[in-house]
Amino acid sequence: MVSPELLRRFPFFACLTDDQLKAVALIAVEKTFPKDTIVLKENAPASRLWILLEGDIDLIFSGGGEGAVVNALVGSIAPGEALGVSSLIEPYQYISSAKAVAPCKVVEIDGVALRALLEVDQKLGLAMMRSIAAAVLERLKYTQVELAAARA
Amino acid sequence: MVSPELLRRFPFFACLTDDQLKAVALIAVEKTFPKDTIVLKENAPASRLWILLEGDIDLIFSGGGEGAVVNALVGSIAPGEALGVSSLIEPYQYISSAKAVAPCKVVEIDGVALRALLEVDQKLGLAMMRSIAAAVLERLKYTQVELAAARA
Repeated sequence: MVSPELLRRFPFFACLTDDQLKAVALIAVEKTFPKDTIVLKENAPASRLWILLEGDIDLIFSGGGEGAVVNALVGSIAPGEALGVSSLIEPYQYISSAKAVAPCKVVEIDGVALRALLEVDQKLGLAMMRSIAAAVLERLKYTQVELAAARA
Repeated sequence: MVSPELLRRFPFFACLTDDQLKAVALIAVEKTFPKDTIVLKENAPASRLWILLEGDIDLIFSGGGEGAVVNALVGSIAPGEALGVSSLIEPYQYISSAKAVAPCKVVEIDGVALRALLEVDQKLGLAMMRSIAAAVLERLKYTQVELAAARA
């Protein structure tokens, strides 16, 4: 587990009560990734959610798996941001790959345990789904800006 | 109001119970828009959520408002899909403009009333936020594909 105080620092967990923070902290661990680690793969089952503490992660889209031709940078994750939000959204499948472009430190949360937690405590579920939706919307805003620039 | 049966047809409301569908149907109305209507404007307060019944809507990003130079197509809404998902995600501000490119028929739901409903019935809140997050993730997937293609 990690300290609930560690989670409290992130806007992602801002709406959680002390007890809810403790419950999430119990299923979270701190991890490090060396530079160039593929943290998650496009289309793989989304089994983990991360909050990036230190480092820098690129999001890469290959349009349908490893054999595909397109291999484009479609976003990046900065410290304080969530990675792997698909772990809480059906059909629980990552929509891009993620690669550490610097040594990274993360909080890793087991997706299956987290989903079970949100079923049991629906207030926690609502708070977390609000954070997840906000994180996806932020990513969408960024991707829209990039798309508009690429098309301009 | 609209018929709860009308709402039940859409995957967006698939997880709602009969009572929850009735509550949402009470604050929903059917509307039509002529071709070329600007349904919502980028950066405006997100006060309404729509489900498109018939027609076709383009999403346009101008990168910072009316005076901005970029004016790019960043997506589209097909019948059965939700428009205005920002009405349920803080800071409740539309992230692109939307224009009817054909005559449209929609279900329109008042965002303030819907947000109040989700506070009172947190089970409904969780179900709706799951649908909203899934809708935003679908949009993100589409936008990623377009960005990857534009950069290829």
